[in-house]
Amino acid sequence: MSILCVGSVALDSVETPFGEATRVLGGSANFFAASASLFTSVQVVGVVGEDYPLEKLDFLRERGVDLSGIEERPGESFFWAGRYHYDLNSRDTLETRLGVFADFKPRIPESFRSARHIFLGNIDPTLQLDVLNQVDDPGVVAADTMNYWIEGARTELLQLLERVDILLVNDAEARQLADEPNLLKAAEWIRGRGPSVVVIKKGEHGAMLFDGDAVFFAPGYPLEQVFDPTGAGDAFAGGFLGYLARRDRMDHETLRRAVVFGSATGSFAVEDFSIDRFRSLDMQQVVKRVREFREMTSFEAPVREVLGV
Amino acid sequence: MSILCVGSVALDSVETPFGEATRVLGGSANFFAASASLFTSVQVVGVVGEDYPLEKLDFLRERGVDLSGIEERPGESFFWAGRYHYDLNSRDTLETRLGVFADFKPRIPESFRSARHIFLGNIDPTLQLDVLNQVDDPGVVAADTMNYWIEGARTELLQLLERVDILLVNDAEARQLADEPNLLKAAEWIRGRGPSVVVIKKGEHGAMLFDGDAVFFAPGYPLEQVFDPTGAGDAFAGGFLGYLARRDRMDHETLRRAVVFGSATGSFAVEDFSIDRFRSLDMQQVVKRVREFREMTSFEAPVREVLGV
Repeated sequence: MSILCVGSVALDSVETPFGEATRVLGGSANFFAASASLFTSVQVVGVVGEDYPLEKLDFLRERGVDLSGIEERPGESFFWAGRYHYDLNSRDTLETRLGVFADFKPRIPESFRSARHIFLGNIDPTLQLDVLNQVDDPGVVAADTMNYWIEGARTELLQLLERVDILLVNDAEARQLADEPNLLKAAEWIRGRGPSVVVIKKGEHGAMLFDGDAVFFAPGYPLEQVFDPTGAGDAFAGGFLGYLARRDRMDHETLRRAVVFGSATGSFAVEDFSIDRFRSLDMQQVVKRVREFREMTSFEAPVREVLGV
Repeated sequence: MSILCVGSVALDSVETPFGEATRVLGGSANFFAASASLFTSVQVVGVVGEDYPLEKLDFLRERGVDLSGIEERPGESFFWAGRYHYDLNSRDTLETRLGVFADFKPRIPESFRSARHIFLGNIDPTLQLDVLNQVDDPGVVAADTMNYWIEGARTELLQLLERVDILLVNDAEARQLADEPNLLKAAEWIRGRGPSVVVIKKGEHGAMLFDGDAVFFAPGYPLEQVFDPTGAGDAFAGGFLGYLARRDRMDHETLRRAVVFGSATGSFAVEDFSIDRFRSLDMQQVVKRVREFREMTSFEAPVREVLGV
């Protein structure tokens, strides 16, 4: 099952304690597609300026990513520059230039409209809604958002939520959206607005799945080297939705595994700058890491011996 | 197997968004003993002033906690006052009065010296070392510490570590102690200084066990209501070491379960002010929560279907 992904196709300049990368491939759509294309074919809708090195996306094309929905427009591509601090948990935005992204109006090509799985990357909720209005009959709609839209476009975001099946946000966004510090209650609040499934990403602290009455946790994968945290959340979403699309199921056990696959692909994303880690990544390595997640979290239920019965 | 616990026996005044408690039972030894006594007998060494309501600890006595090592001295008991913020993840210390704790010199009663399991709560590492010099032949030494000693008594702390089997610290303390932001590397550094096992507590984000080549994670238990986070780390240590002492084993599988039991008892601690939640807590409830931890983290290994082999 192919996934339609709409988001930013950007250039990033990133400084971390381990080095820097200048004007490299970035944006939610790139990270999502690089990750999800390990699982299934991906159709990308986005916009770039004349300065964009589209040829550098050839490795995605070779992996089944259809980039024909990326519009090239006169002007400059979306550019973001940031600097990560010592512990990589916080960052400063040094520069943001929206360029052609400022007037982005997603146009879904005819051949993309029958997609069953949709990923709405973090863009204006009005545009996310607009995407949904252009597709025929989406089976699974997953969406991301951020504090900027939660504050500035709350009404539109709440309208969008009514049509979203899975919301993927980080813990701060969940708390802000629900105006509730307790994550259990925040997730419950969000699920009351539309999404039957909520995934809360907590960076190095892992991810939580809320589905039905169940809560599921995957830890953050402990890496010896974190090179560049940029895009980890979108790479998570790519592994998560990629797995769901490949399986074409959304039962609870499948959702749990999807969270672990997302945690795995998210953890690979941070091992190199930009989407570079995905150039050499294959499913064998992903599955190996999924097995490590299992090993890291499993323990024997210890009832009898403790109660002494 | 009985556990010898040395730590603070304090009075706390706590404000949270959900209410406040004035001059209630607090301190690392109380939280540890309340938790560990669910698993085994506990011997407490500490000091209090004339103002301490020792009779309020009767429920611990009834649960097999030997308080005869708590010295009563002229003066005021250790007093701490703090206020937790909206999301309960940060707090301000409003007041600290060391009182008789300032001159605390742990004296281990003759009848306590044969303890096989020792918990060295967060006190001056010189005193922690002094405790070890008074016991006969400890089998398992677990210790906690904090930023104050890491900065101010580093040499003594490193001497202590050589004689510690299990160090339990939070993530910030681990990073500071090892001067290393990466937790994997920080744990490795600490294990190079003595402890064969390191447990890193991350509050609501769970706990990590480093033992041999393995890393194990337990998530934070998702609570609808967090009343008062004070003492959660010591209640964790009590469940963790309590389980190890009860089983009298320290193999890897037992350590994993101990982390989950610690996570469970830590999660109960925050459901009420002070050590009050332990008044009604029994092993049945703890085991139920341990089972929930298992349910929250388990997933089926998903190899064949994904690779299509």
